[in-house]
Amino acid sequence: MTTTARALQAPSAQAPLEPTTIERRDLGPTDVAIDVKFCGICHSDIHQVEGDWGRKLFPMVPGHEIAGVVTAVGSDVTRHAEGDRVGVGCFVDSCGACDSCQAGDEHFCAKGVVATYNGLDYDGERTLGGYSTHIVVDERFVLRIPDGLELDAAAPLLCAGITMYNPLKRWGAGPGKAVAIVGMGGLGHVGVQLAAAMGAEVTVLSQTLSKEADGRRFGASAYHATSDPSTFKSLRGRFDLILNTVSANLPLDAYLGLLKPRGAMVSVGLPTEPDTFHAGSLIGRDRVLSGSNVGGLPMHQEMLDFCAEHGVAPAIEVIGGDAVNEAYPRVVRSDVRYRFVIDVGTL
Amino acid sequence: MTTTARALQAPSAQAPLEPTTIERRDLGPTDVAIDVKFCGICHSDIHQVEGDWGRKLFPMVPGHEIAGVVTAVGSDVTRHAEGDRVGVGCFVDSCGACDSCQAGDEHFCAKGVVATYNGLDYDGERTLGGYSTHIVVDERFVLRIPDGLELDAAAPLLCAGITMYNPLKRWGAGPGKAVAIVGMGGLGHVGVQLAAAMGAEVTVLSQTLSKEADGRRFGASAYHATSDPSTFKSLRGRFDLILNTVSANLPLDAYLGLLKPRGAMVSVGLPTEPDTFHAGSLIGRDRVLSGSNVGGLPMHQEMLDFCAEHGVAPAIEVIGGDAVNEAYPRVVRSDVRYRFVIDVGTL
Repeated sequence: MTTTARALQAPSAQAPLEPTTIERRDLGPTDVAIDVKFCGICHSDIHQVEGDWGRKLFPMVPGHEIAGVVTAVGSDVTRHAEGDRVGVGCFVDSCGACDSCQAGDEHFCAKGVVATYNGLDYDGERTLGGYSTHIVVDERFVLRIPDGLELDAAAPLLCAGITMYNPLKRWGAGPGKAVAIVGMGGLGHVGVQLAAAMGAEVTVLSQTLSKEADGRRFGASAYHATSDPSTFKSLRGRFDLILNTVSANLPLDAYLGLLKPRGAMVSVGLPTEPDTFHAGSLIGRDRVLSGSNVGGLPMHQEMLDFCAEHGVAPAIEVIGGDAVNEAYPRVVRSDVRYRFVIDVGTL
Repeated sequence: MTTTARALQAPSAQAPLEPTTIERRDLGPTDVAIDVKFCGICHSDIHQVEGDWGRKLFPMVPGHEIAGVVTAVGSDVTRHAEGDRVGVGCFVDSCGACDSCQAGDEHFCAKGVVATYNGLDYDGERTLGGYSTHIVVDERFVLRIPDGLELDAAAPLLCAGITMYNPLKRWGAGPGKAVAIVGMGGLGHVGVQLAAAMGAEVTVLSQTLSKEADGRRFGASAYHATSDPSTFKSLRGRFDLILNTVSANLPLDAYLGLLKPRGAMVSVGLPTEPDTFHAGSLIGRDRVLSGSNVGGLPMHQEMLDFCAEHGVAPAIEVIGGDAVNEAYPRVVRSDVRYRFVIDVGTL
């Protein structure tokens, strides 16, 4: 017996979102039923609703920054119980058997991870995301939200948070390390807080200085405008790690010049056009270019626990379901400080 | 009182090398005087003689793959003694005081490392390289050549060897790791031996299969032609590390597709044109692009000791000084298996 949920769906590419009802599967033995309280709006929701990326399964219910409360659990569930505060991120299933899954890198699953929406379950059903009042997810993909985190602010951590936490951890952000965060938006403002909480010395590189006060409040000790060419001279050779949240093509050689020997520049944004660089920018000082794509489940839980312990929380604007269509263009033009979160009870 | 040495010099850019005599400085307290026995021909010698790169100090005496025997030491020298078998690589001085020098990363010296030739000493004197019978070098920059290594075969290790060893070590080549070496030339054939000696599973990716027998003899367990498009399908997601010795612009997205999650592609060759890639090739699997430039002095010594212990030695063709001008075009068209070494006694 399925459960009916209220939801917001995009009926076709580039069409406005509209209210609808959807069915959620009945609980399997390892499933958790979640009353969705809040769902963050991620820029990638807009790309997928616009049909910018590969897969386009319409009607589409977006949303992969899900925070809610458990209402029921399947007979074999051991990790969660009714009443638990939980979250769901960008994926809801993986094979569980391959080397990557066994290593806690479910996002690299050899069979292909199942996206939370605009994806296909292994049984061929389309997945529908968190812009909905109810969702059923296998317990492995359900994260605990610690008491120290508010549910509304926790929602964006399930994508924006892990997207920043994973590369900061991998590339050694911590005491004695100089970290630059490029872009002060929905991702960057979380990255600044995380890097500062890890003990790193944090610099923001943003197009202008318009958000400098916010950046310093979030934990940055320096803030520079990338529109000012002197930035690239004065900061030459300064950073151990540059975490780039910008989706546009950047002048990579200029940014790589800001790294110390063996320093790394890690991008999480996907420009549509190819990037270019001179090999000498890497070879001269053994520098690194890399990318990062969310993280595995254990890293998600570690991130949530870290945020609760260190008081890291996205700055959010909570909106009702009827305001989502107006919010999307504001996300596109970075006119939000810093993340929209849908109060799903209003759907 | 200076010492006169016979040498080969390029009088000007693109001119043939010609015999000459040069003066070497008298021994300072920390200097070591070396009777040069062999000097490898590195492709970068040709670039510098041609004037392809930034600095062009003519007349130029090339050579930074130097193997010889100590003839005298300064009053304060403790590391070397008369009769020692020693080598000198790509640099002959650094500040010794900066963080990089203190960490044994002299090649990243903040003051600027002094190149063995076509460089300027800190006192402003032009440096002259190893195509000469005699050289005087500060003891810090003089490496021990273990008994297990022949001097002629040891010479190319001082550049080709360290250029391969450093990235293999940094990026974790060893048991259980799949390593691809791109290019089977002067660098690649050493890289194959080193990676195999470290315990990695080694694959060669070369334009054609013409050197497959050599590759397998050097320790590769697989050999594929990059001119065959099926190579990029059959090897998809296969490697932990791709070490690229080719100086031409490669289709990076295709190569990055051969890496496992978190795998690294590291280049040591400098194409003159910029490289291009799609950010998704890095982001999708947290992959890495990097570069590597020789290594520090402790890593040089570790490499020489490793080669002696594991029987790693470049395949060489020893030539007299009068054959160097004919050897250069053969290096350019990869018509040597695999490295020319000058018998400096013939100068």
